[in-house]
Amino acid sequence: MSDKKKNILIIGGDGYLGWPTAMNLSKKGNRICVLDNFSKRRIEVEEGVSPLWPIPTLMERVKIWKEISGIEIKLYSGDLLNEKLIYQILDIEKPDTIIHYGEQPSAPYSMKSLSNASFTQHNNVIGNLNLLFAIKSKCPNTHLVKLGTMGEYGQPNIDIEEGFIEINHNGRSDKFLYPKNPGSFYHLSKVHDTNNIYFACNIWGLRSTDLNQGVVYGIDTDETINHKDLLTSFHYDDVFGTVLNRFCVQAAINKPLTIYGNGSQTRTYLNIKDTLKCVEIATNNPPKEGEFKVFNQFTETFSIIELANIVKESAKNLNLNVELSYIKNPRIEKEDHYYNAKNEKLVSLGLNPIKLNSEFVQLMISKIRESKDLINNDIIDPRIKWKAK
Amino acid sequence: MSDKKKNILIIGGDGYLGWPTAMNLSKKGNRICVLDNFSKRRIEVEEGVSPLWPIPTLMERVKIWKEISGIEIKLYSGDLLNEKLIYQILDIEKPDTIIHYGEQPSAPYSMKSLSNASFTQHNNVIGNLNLLFAIKSKCPNTHLVKLGTMGEYGQPNIDIEEGFIEINHNGRSDKFLYPKNPGSFYHLSKVHDTNNIYFACNIWGLRSTDLNQGVVYGIDTDETINHKDLLTSFHYDDVFGTVLNRFCVQAAINKPLTIYGNGSQTRTYLNIKDTLKCVEIATNNPPKEGEFKVFNQFTETFSIIELANIVKESAKNLNLNVELSYIKNPRIEKEDHYYNAKNEKLVSLGLNPIKLNSEFVQLMISKIRESKDLINNDIIDPRIKWKAK
Repeated sequence: MSDKKKNILIIGGDGYLGWPTAMNLSKKGNRICVLDNFSKRRIEVEEGVSPLWPIPTLMERVKIWKEISGIEIKLYSGDLLNEKLIYQILDIEKPDTIIHYGEQPSAPYSMKSLSNASFTQHNNVIGNLNLLFAIKSKCPNTHLVKLGTMGEYGQPNIDIEEGFIEINHNGRSDKFLYPKNPGSFYHLSKVHDTNNIYFACNIWGLRSTDLNQGVVYGIDTDETINHKDLLTSFHYDDVFGTVLNRFCVQAAINKPLTIYGNGSQTRTYLNIKDTLKCVEIATNNPPKEGEFKVFNQFTETFSIIELANIVKESAKNLNLNVELSYIKNPRIEKEDHYYNAKNEKLVSLGLNPIKLNSEFVQLMISKIRESKDLINNDIIDPRIKWKAK
Repeated sequence: MSDKKKNILIIGGDGYLGWPTAMNLSKKGNRICVLDNFSKRRIEVEEGVSPLWPIPTLMERVKIWKEISGIEIKLYSGDLLNEKLIYQILDIEKPDTIIHYGEQPSAPYSMKSLSNASFTQHNNVIGNLNLLFAIKSKCPNTHLVKLGTMGEYGQPNIDIEEGFIEINHNGRSDKFLYPKNPGSFYHLSKVHDTNNIYFACNIWGLRSTDLNQGVVYGIDTDETINHKDLLTSFHYDDVFGTVLNRFCVQAAINKPLTIYGNGSQTRTYLNIKDTLKCVEIATNNPPKEGEFKVFNQFTETFSIIELANIVKESAKNLNLNVELSYIKNPRIEKEDHYYNAKNEKLVSLGLNPIKLNSEFVQLMISKIRESKDLINNDIIDPRIKWKAK
């Protein structure tokens, strides 16, 4: 792994993962710029949801990080849809690496209405297209590290490989991008991005790593714990909350863990600290000219039932008796399906996965319980349905 | 094939294929509405290209068609990006079938600049997304016949099936949308559409047929020949011209047939009259609720060299001695590749393909020669390059 310090632009630097990544990579000696359009904060207001702990502005957090660590993070406020601004930033910064978290990240949000679906696909696809053209024009050797999702694959009845698959058919064979079957307009936007980026690598010789990430859980990273105002946005609501984080919040207030459908749905997961490690590994292993790398970025596979039982048992150790409650699935998705996804590449490059265990879940629940007065139980139940009527 | 007369909305009714389709299906007793935003006419002005024969406005052609045939075609001027208008039109018309040609159709145009790529993907993907939501809301049983392209598949080293492929992998199997490898931002937009439509069928139960069409050639249909002002837009330029049409124009003015690269590139083709038949067959065979059908819509496969030789030989029969000229390929595409695409479904539903032959090409060249003073040789050579610099 190369130890050369890099000039890194993080797009979506205000987000759950963007901000911890910025601190982490700056701590390791890289020069960091962050860019954000703060659209997630706008959507929070629009949807009436908010993170468990109020999050200082990005400007404030950059200032506190400077005071605590002595390290400056450069902040750009702006939108990837403003292509002139992107050309300008890349012209000034000439980043070695761009880590692109800057997309509308909620599947339920994208399914709520035409305007939500349209915003999601326009924002994500055209924003990413602007970025590709700006890289081609201003810094064609830059390594684009793009956050995708394991949800792009859907739940196929065959093993999920990392990005590509060799298909043998009628006595001949060829290698293809793994065919995707995404489950929301959000997930579709990530598939569209993948196809556009792969094309830009092939045609223009750009370099990109697509990180198909699992569901992230956790509150803290090594940097967020340095100061109460360096925390990252922890969501447990129906728009931005991810399942394990939500279960821990439900356990903390002694509410039933709500399971969508029969809970057999199987997905991939990783600790937020491993997200930072994976992104660092990707950054330190840039592709060759024209190469499109794909890593499946997760550490473990669980069904929803398995996760719920881990949280239930962990809560019991804290003397909390938590029930499981099965509710109608607001999504349209497979239950009782085959699921076997590969994740060897990041491990082979040095990832040492953090495994989920009861101790960790107990720590999460305990930390949440300290702030249980802040929890708004009204924003947990799913309001957005996948089906037509 | 069902003979029930249908209420049909044709989007892109001003285009090379949209207008002949409108006349043809109205002649067969269906009630036809057309919608167009005339963006192709705007792009013609922007790029300095024009069809060989000046084309009356759609309003004028609708009027002449009424005079000639006695049949009224209802005309809406408007943009698929105007979602309120689309909801309104579907609410008023409640079409049985929507034939959606209404997308930016030029690969070179999409490769010219960021603004062209961005316009193409925004116009095509978001326009189509608006249509999907409007169908869901206003007429969920409507059959969406969507024009895709054989170019979505690229040139894989295995046989190209019709839309789907069964993949056997590590002892298990599943059926997937055939994995695509498109060759321009335009072709990518069609792949994004396909993914969005497939999802809408799966989640909402919409009905759609995706027609992956080959390269269309020809000047006339049974209806265009009824009056000199009922013709359709015949392009031979570097933006909208397709290869066989361009070769016939070059032959007609005794210019060399310009072959991009070594000419071994193999593609699928069909006569414009067969486009109308295929679209009619699709219309008369609507999918079941939630079904996404895919037909590969072409009749023959040729390499560029084969096409050039057919035109050269046909020209010789007209006493025109035409040369072949090999020029640097402005596109980035495979040469000397395997190509075997299936097209059984439309034939099994009754398509009786018109084969390309020298007589037909002689007729085309002769008709073009009658107007050879109208040909602008300056708009034929490719100006738009695929590569980065």
